[in-house]
Amino acid sequence: MVVILKPTTSEERKNQLIDWFRAQNLGVHVSVGEYHTILGLIGDTRSLDIDLVSSLDIVESVKRVTDPFKCCNRKFHPDDTVITVGDAKIGGGNFCLIAGPCSVESEEQIVAVATEVKKAGAKILRGGAFKPRTSPYAFQGLKANGLELLKLARKETGLPIVTEIMSVSTLDLFEDVDIIQVGARNMQNFDLLQELGKLNKPVLLKRGLANTMTELLMSAEYIMASGNEQVILCERGIRTYETLTRNTLDLSAVPMLHELSHLPVIVDPSHATGIARLVEPMALAGAACGADGLMIEVHNDPIHALCDGAQSLTPEQFLHLSRKVAAVRQAVQA
Amino acid sequence: MVVILKPTTSEERKNQLIDWFRAQNLGVHVSVGEYHTILGLIGDTRSLDIDLVSSLDIVESVKRVTDPFKCCNRKFHPDDTVITVGDAKIGGGNFCLIAGPCSVESEEQIVAVATEVKKAGAKILRGGAFKPRTSPYAFQGLKANGLELLKLARKETGLPIVTEIMSVSTLDLFEDVDIIQVGARNMQNFDLLQELGKLNKPVLLKRGLANTMTELLMSAEYIMASGNEQVILCERGIRTYETLTRNTLDLSAVPMLHELSHLPVIVDPSHATGIARLVEPMALAGAACGADGLMIEVHNDPIHALCDGAQSLTPEQFLHLSRKVAAVRQAVQA
Amino acid sequence: MVVILKPTTSEERKNQLIDWFRAQNLGVHVSVGEYHTILGLIGDTRSLDIDLVSSLDIVESVKRVTDPFKCCNRKFHPDDTVITVGDAKIGGGNFCLIAGPCSVESEEQIVAVATEVKKAGAKILRGGAFKPRTSPYAFQGLKANGLELLKLARKETGLPIVTEIMSVSTLDLFEDVDIIQVGARNMQNFDLLQELGKLNKPVLLKRGLANTMTELLMSAEYIMASGNEQVILCERGIRTYETLTRNTLDLSAVPMLHELSHLPVIVDPSHATGIARLVEPMALAGAACGADGLMIEVHNDPIHALCDGAQSLTPEQFLHLSRKVAAVRQAVQA
Amino acid sequence: MVVILKPTTSEERKNQLIDWFRAQNLGVHVSVGEYHTILGLIGDTRSLDIDLVSSLDIVESVKRVTDPFKCCNRKFHPDDTVITVGDAKIGGGNFCLIAGPCSVESEEQIVAVATEVKKAGAKILRGGAFKPRTSPYAFQGLKANGLELLKLARKETGLPIVTEIMSVSTLDLFEDVDIIQVGARNMQNFDLLQELGKLNKPVLLKRGLANTMTELLMSAEYIMASGNEQVILCERGIRTYETLTRNTLDLSAVPMLHELSHLPVIVDPSHATGIARLVEPMALAGAACGADGLMIEVHNDPIHALCDGAQSLTPEQFLHLSRKVAAVRQAVQA
Repeated sequence: MVVILKPTTSEERKNQLIDWFRAQNLGVHVSVGEYHTILGLIGDTRSLDIDLVSSLDIVESVKRVTDPFKCCNRKFHPDDTVITVGDAKIGGGNFCLIAGPCSVESEEQIVAVATEVKKAGAKILRGGAFKPRTSPYAFQGLKANGLELLKLARKETGLPIVTEIMSVSTLDLFEDVDIIQVGARNMQNFDLLQELGKLNKPVLLKRGLANTMTELLMSAEYIMASGNEQVILCERGIRTYETLTRNTLDLSAVPMLHELSHLPVIVDPSHATGIARLVEPMALAGAACGADGLMIEVHNDPIHALCDGAQSLTPEQFLHLSRKVAAVRQAVQA
Repeated sequence: MVVILKPTTSEERKNQLIDWFRAQNLGVHVSVGEYHTILGLIGDTRSLDIDLVSSLDIVESVKRVTDPFKCCNRKFHPDDTVITVGDAKIGGGNFCLIAGPCSVESEEQIVAVATEVKKAGAKILRGGAFKPRTSPYAFQGLKANGLELLKLARKETGLPIVTEIMSVSTLDLFEDVDIIQVGARNMQNFDLLQELGKLNKPVLLKRGLANTMTELLMSAEYIMASGNEQVILCERGIRTYETLTRNTLDLSAVPMLHELSHLPVIVDPSHATGIARLVEPMALAGAACGADGLMIEVHNDPIHALCDGAQSLTPEQFLHLSRKVAAVRQAVQA
Repeated sequence: MVVILKPTTSEERKNQLIDWFRAQNLGVHVSVGEYHTILGLIGDTRSLDIDLVSSLDIVESVKRVTDPFKCCNRKFHPDDTVITVGDAKIGGGNFCLIAGPCSVESEEQIVAVATEVKKAGAKILRGGAFKPRTSPYAFQGLKANGLELLKLARKETGLPIVTEIMSVSTLDLFEDVDIIQVGARNMQNFDLLQELGKLNKPVLLKRGLANTMTELLMSAEYIMASGNEQVILCERGIRTYETLTRNTLDLSAVPMLHELSHLPVIVDPSHATGIARLVEPMALAGAACGADGLMIEVHNDPIHALCDGAQSLTPEQFLHLSRKVAAVRQAVQA
Repeated sequence: MVVILKPTTSEERKNQLIDWFRAQNLGVHVSVGEYHTILGLIGDTRSLDIDLVSSLDIVESVKRVTDPFKCCNRKFHPDDTVITVGDAKIGGGNFCLIAGPCSVESEEQIVAVATEVKKAGAKILRGGAFKPRTSPYAFQGLKANGLELLKLARKETGLPIVTEIMSVSTLDLFEDVDIIQVGARNMQNFDLLQELGKLNKPVLLKRGLANTMTELLMSAEYIMASGNEQVILCERGIRTYETLTRNTLDLSAVPMLHELSHLPVIVDPSHATGIARLVEPMALAGAACGADGLMIEVHNDPIHALCDGAQSLTPEQFLHLSRKVAAVRQAVQA
């Protein structure tokens, strides 16, 4: 860490700060410039609170030199992590389509969608049982019953299942789930992350609406530092001033996260855009820039035929997307 | 809710949609324009998923006419809510200074700070026991022990205490806490909100880093719809592209939330700016635009004398702020 | 336009507003709901100031039903616009690579780069002569001399040239330029847009750092309403809170703008990311989601060999990108 | 400037970079750490392109140590700049109310408003003659004729006038204007800034919608480096994801800009919020945190009585605001 002191800093205050750093087992390299004194800290600065240091009145600014994350850092682990669930692999050149309905609604629905998406190339079934909703008056999902229906669909199709957890208190219910998803709103629910770190089960970690890539990696670090190294990162759109799309899909995060970390990175174009017509183009874009997988909403409930413009695709649209994605991947890898 | 259909919508699809709305007990008023057909929905649309409707391929756009929140809505509850804890009152013209250290560190520290801030005019003591931290390697607070030290400080000074909860699983520990704080990262931890809604105890709800005022009110609605009407809203800065301050304090939220809701609104300039030098001017600004209270970080631990430029003020600085705030409030109310 | 009145609106105020709308040649359709009265305005509302109407104290909110843009609107002009310059075509299925250095530095440099990028598949040469710079102390480009060097490179290679204009006062100098570029900072320099609207020459219009897609289309409308229909839209990244990339490339804008408008849409991954390593993956992503072209920075000045990690690619890297992009386009169109 | 090199950097590449810095007359201080080599640059780095350096592939990151601005930097000019126009002073403890209509509409209107705001305490008259409008179909102002009406109002009342310039090409028309305003959309119209820098006349520079405080100061630097030191900074709201207010007023910018620069800082709550009801509370907040002035929209045109909920206040509301602001200023300074 490099700490730049203000020109007005007294010797006494400067030495107090240097002593404080040394008391925390850090070496301090002092470099006196024309206007500013620069302190270079040597040693493990990961536990140092950069916000605290930068808020000191004698400090002009602070710059981290080493990354604050370690377990998920490609520098210390150059090889890609590959996550395996059933026949599906994600990462290290293995591409995986994850598909299914927004919410699990009934046995008929989930089994039918699962059958269709499997035929179209999906390797993992998604479906919401616990639904985080902005409004307390909105449908909150079938909860435990929804999980049972997902398992039924798995039994029928052989597809592993991924579904979202909203609270540590329901963790027991997820024992037989293949991949546990942490939603955008819980990306910094640190208690939940630590509990998931104690499991031996892949975690699909979605980027928060207003979280930086570094914060996403720090949340992965929470899980990994607790012992669970099976983390899948997911870009799903960030909040910006643009309102024509629900969120702004930040695809640059795909190559950037790949550079910083060895963890697989997937893209969710359905939630990011909120518009079915944009799902295929953004899925293709995600595949083109190197995503290790895509998470796509698909429905086939006739009652919702009405909604085929929603963010969910029909099975036919998903099949079309699946074929195009395969072609794009082949083009990129050639 | 007003639903605007695309010019290309067929009669059949339009009628399907109208039937679907009617099946949900909504009246539908159809108005055919030159290019667009507009559907006006009559009845309780709060449980309708606006994202779903707006994502239909025949829908150009959707506009809510009524607010999606009810319990916290000033339209249905014109009088200000007043929260009372011990001798402190917040809201309805009652202004309240909340002060204390970022983290509880020791008995000496918390009792000393509590004594000082009480002398300077604080009515409630704040202090972090469970600390949400971006990094798993950073200090996470004294946890249960920190809560005990807060209670000791309360016993010594008579000041009611407010402290942050991070997880439903620790709720028992907060039984004897006066006000439970929900931090920015947990503003949409809906399970936690629902559990807090079952208590008979004030909740201080901080606005999330990337959350709109409407979403803040919807989170208050979660607590209130579960039965607990004692909610204090807190503006604490939102995430923007500006980097000179930690976050961007959105003070317009104070009069805007007051207009929309009867709940008290306080301001936390310490976390918003992350810079001690900005705390007093932004505290004065908060008081000037009508905040019902301020939450200020104050330390007096000699080991941290070093840090008196941090976001925490010294007791002397807090006393200065307290006097200025009183003067500004008098000026505004005159 | 739909105008929703507040529940408390008096009959008198409501009628004043209705009269005011009618005085502006608009029909008004009144629909009285349980709480709110809704006014549907019929006629040409494009010149109505939506901000003014929505700020009236009796107005709860306002919703446009028709788009505020007309000339660039696909609804009134379903066929793709195709821009032709020399042998290059952009739009309507015609894909175009635009490449060249950030700044024109010398004859040797620009001719050499032009020769290289032509070989690698570029159809148009880019190069900055007038450079908008945040700092008055930074290099501002070779200006008029830079334009001459671009023309020399065009003469040598036959490639049409595109370069940025910063001010109406230099317009004469651009007479012999093939495509005039309006940079992000000038997207709402309305005087400049109107002057460019009087020309018979393509304009490459970059999206502003903080501008919505609708605002981009309104700026295109300024040019087109003045008589020049040859506008190319360019997505080049928007400003968000993320700092690992220079800006956040909003690729969803590509399919969205294509849906709203008949104008061609290109992508500039070099400026958006500011990092050479990300240019190829984001170029591939842009091609995959349907961009009509890409604008890529390429240098080959040996003095800058040092900088081959900058946002500029070497000619070899550009050739690699060009081949991959062609493959991705084939995959997408198959 | 501190440049942090990647761990993988070869000696050869490192030495090339060091030589390049030295060729630009910079001293280079090399510090070799456990993982990273850090280069400290000594000398005038203002003209160095930080984006270029940070994009080099051997560079991990870059950190400025000295501010990139000089003329407007408080470090080199500790005393507050005071701007004087007629009887009005802004800065250095002198507070100034600027008021007037959004657009100049007629002689009656502008004279009447000028008379009213003068009575209520305004020291400077504002009014738009050239209006930047997102839509080419919206009213663009009375232009040259509007400037004449403003001068008439000045003659009647003695109030100096401030009005917005949109283009260098109209500069002659502003010769007799007291303060020239640069709007948010033109904050980085560098040609315009440089021309204004050649005048001996105060410039009111508004912060751009998506511009940082540092960029605002760099734009002031453009004007000052060209010779004109009379710059007034204006915070007028930034673009964020929040939609209930038109923009998000960033009041923290007031004390922050005061710390960084000696230039006066004023606040425009009318444009920032777009809602008349919020103008007074935000004006009070601006005064409370140390603004040197406020810019307030006031109308009194009977035709617009309808609009008294718009962002413009009536003269009565402005008088109320003026008195409250005076009281708050007294409270803060006591």
